[in-house]
Parts: sequence; C-alpha cells; structure tokens
Amino acid sequence: MTYCLAISVNDGIVFASDSRSNAGVDYIRTCSKMHRFFWPGDRIIVLLSAGNLATTQAVVNAVQRDLDDPKAKFNLLKAKHLFDIADYVGDLSQKEQHHHGPAIEKNGGSAGASFILGGQIKGHEHDIYLIYPEGNYISASIETPYLQIGENKYGKPMLDRVISMDSSLNNAARCALVSLDSTMRSNISVGPPFELTLYNGDSLEEPRQMSLKLASPYYKTLQKSWNEGLKRAFSRLPKFDWE
Amino acid sequence: MTYCLAISVNDGIVFASDSRSNAGVDYIRTCSKMHRFFWPGDRIIVLLSAGNLATTQAVVNAVQRDLDDPKAKFNLLKAKHLFDIADYVGDLSQKEQHHHGPAIEKNGGSAGASFILGGQIKGHEHDIYLIYPEGNYISASIETPYLQIGENKYGKPMLDRVISMDSSLNNAARCALVSLDSTMRSNISVGPPFELTLYNGDSLEEPRQMSLKLASPYYKTLQKSWNEGLKRAFSRLPKFDWE
Repeated sequence: MTYCLAISVNDGIVFASDSRSNAGVDYIRTCSKMHRFFWPGDRIIVLLSAGNLATTQAVVNAVQRDLDDPKAKFNLLKAKHLFDIADYVGDLSQKEQHHHGPAIEKNGGSAGASFILGGQIKGHEHDIYLIYPEGNYISASIETPYLQIGENKYGKPMLDRVISMDSSLNNAARCALVSLDSTMRSNISVGPPFELTLYNGDSLEEPRQMSLKLASPYYKTLQKSWNEGLKRAFSRLPKFDWE
Repeated sequence: MTYCLAISVNDGIVFASDSRSNAGVDYIRTCSKMHRFFWPGDRIIVLLSAGNLATTQAVVNAVQRDLDDPKAKFNLLKAKHLFDIADYVGDLSQKEQHHHGPAIEKNGGSAGASFILGGQIKGHEHDIYLIYPEGNYISASIETPYLQIGENKYGKPMLDRVISMDSSLNNAARCALVSLDSTMRSNISVGPPFELTLYNGDSLEEPRQMSLKLASPYYKTLQKSWNEGLKRAFSRLPKFDWE
C-alpha cells in the first residue's frame, strides 16, 4: 500500500508521499513514490505514484525515455498544458497495464496504478490532477483543494478540518505530515521516510524538498507536539451531565 | 454503510453506533443498529449490526423468536458464556445468508453482515466480540481493547491514540463520539443520531443509554470543543526551520 497526497492552495502546492512498498506482508522495501521534473523558469512537474510498483516504474521510465528522445511526439517539455500531461500519463499507464495486466491477473494480482500530477507550466496557473488506473483524471476543487492516492481514509479527517485555499504553504505541509502520521499509525503498509515538496506558486523556481525519517528531529518534534495537542484537546471535551 | 464500535475497558463497555442506512445513495433512511437485551442482575447483552439490513434484521428477529420460545434449544437466556452467543449469532447470520444470498448476489448485491456482541453474564467477565460475515468471531485484546464494524478507517486514529484498558468509561464514550464524528465528516453514508450505551462492568445493572442528534446540546458542544481543540493543536505544531 501507499499514501500520497497533494494540496493545492493559493500560495502553491505541497506534495507528500510515504516510501513503503510491499509485495505481501513478507516482502517490504523502501522506495520513493515522488518523481520530480524541474525546469526552473519554464515548468515544474511532480508525479506521485501508487499501486503496482512495476507499472508505476514503467510509466516513469517511459516519461524519461520520451524526454531523452528529441523526436518523441510528446513529452513533458512539449506539453502546453498540465492536463495534457495528465492525459499522457494516463495513456502510458493504460498501455503498461494492457501489456502485463493479463499475466498479473492470472496470478490474482492487479497491474493497476494511480498517480497525482501537479506543478506549473509558464503562463498557466499551478494545479493538481488525480489520474485513475483507467487513465482518466480529475482536478482538485476550491472546496476540496487536495487529492489523495493509496490508503486515503485514515488521514482524511484532518485535511477536511484544516485545509482551505487560504492555508499557507507551510501549514499545508504540516497538515500533510499529520495526515501521513495518522495513516502510518493505523496501517503498517504505509511508512517513512516521508518525502515533501513545497512549490511556491507562480515562482517557477525549484521547489523546497525534504525527506523525513522517524528519527528526523523535526518529525519527532511534530509527532510529539501533535500527540500531546490531541490528548489535551481530548481532555478538555465537555463532561457528560452525570459526571 | 454503517459505523459501529465497542470499547471494553477495565471499568466496563461502551457501545456506539450511527443510524444511517442506505440502499444506494438515492435511498437513505434512519434506523437503529443497536439491539439491547437486558436482564438486570443476570445478564446484559448488546448487539451492534452492520451490512445487509435485511440480514441483520432477520438475525435480530430470530434472536427474539428463540427468546419467546421456551422450547428453543438455545437462546440469550440459556447461554452460559458470551462466546456461546457469538457462535449462535454467527450461525443465525450464516443461515440467513444462505437463504437469501444467492438471489441477492444474482443482482450484484451482498447478503453479508457483521456484528459486535458485548455485555456480561453473571459469574463471568464483561467482554466484546466481533462476528464476521462468515460466522466466525474474535474478541478484543488488552492492547487493542476496541472492535469496529462498517466504515472503520476514518475513526480509528483517535482510538489508537487515546484508548487503553485504563480509560474511564466516560472517556471511552467521548472517544467513541469523536470517532463517529470524524467518520461522519468524511463519509456521508454514516450519520446521526448516534446511539450510546455505557455498561458499568460487574454491576449487571441496566446500562446508561443516550441517543444524540446533531442538534443535541451535548453533541454540539463536544463537536465545537473538539474542532477548536484540533485547530489549537495544529496551530501549535513546530515551525519549519525556514519559517
């Protein structure tokens, strides 16, 4: 399993991902699910991936292959709109799934994969898209300015309570970490290091990047502060009338 | 969908359930999922239900039919152990599923149902059990003294942070309400009124019962306090070093 999310606020975009990959509970590894493609001044593109690891790696490899080929019909540099790239990633994903899917399904597995794509192309607004395993995609909305892939339930309540378009980029990043932390506590197939990318909207500058391990001083402090804050909030809940 | 949970602490048991039932998103109704059977001084039994409503109602009807029949081979009053009742409910559920399941599956539905059973029989400890659709069952553990059925993910993180065997019955009840509240915010198929039953362990007395609507003064105060407490905890999270 996996948990990745992107939050698109007025100030920019936060991308966050866990790094646990597993084939059954008896084969666990760590691998990045955040793929960054930066051309400062022109375009900033981030791709988060969930689902079948072979499919997602094949899609990222195909993206790279097209980038390296000046004769490619389409690639990240030739795209005019971000949603053209969403289309392209959806097509690459479907192609890979058609290639290996039948053999995988015969063994009871699934070749399915989902992606979150986000960033900015010069002349356009920053945006985020969720690309479904079927290859189609949606964008976030003003009312719900975040998208999630993988194990999305445990970490959703805090996003719903805290995040709005007016949230600062730093607050969105903190909320993404809290969301990842809640998920990790309830689902052992989601785990650190947690990767973060903070893109300042309209800057077209290389985003700020972090990788947080359990032992990272910032993550430890955040985890402790959040746990204590929740317990304090809980201890202040109103008493029942019989107490 | 549904969300029900039971928390068994040293002081007793809290049962909590939502009341939304739906057949698709275009047919929503309100119905209780908490079934109480009290014989103060002898046995206190509560059954929470999730899944196919016809199955769960048929099971509860069968329980009542056996109770009304003095010649019944087994019923709630004849049970020596609580786990005998778990066995019995599992068997009733499987019987009902075999009866109507094939016709339901032909229409793409499922006759499956899960239950949480809890309470106390004189001479034994209080306990809770989760009865799977397959009819088998598990009890809670000292490390994880709660059980959930239905939409269990959104409301799990707070239980994991707050609940232990030493939690007071009132705190367990508050945590159950917070867990229901988080679930309701993220899943529209879970909704009020929320029913609560608080059983004081070893008392064998009739438990305290509440039904909380959105407009109930206690629930409104709790919701506001929790929301503000979470936002306060969030606002106190440590700043990044670049802030």
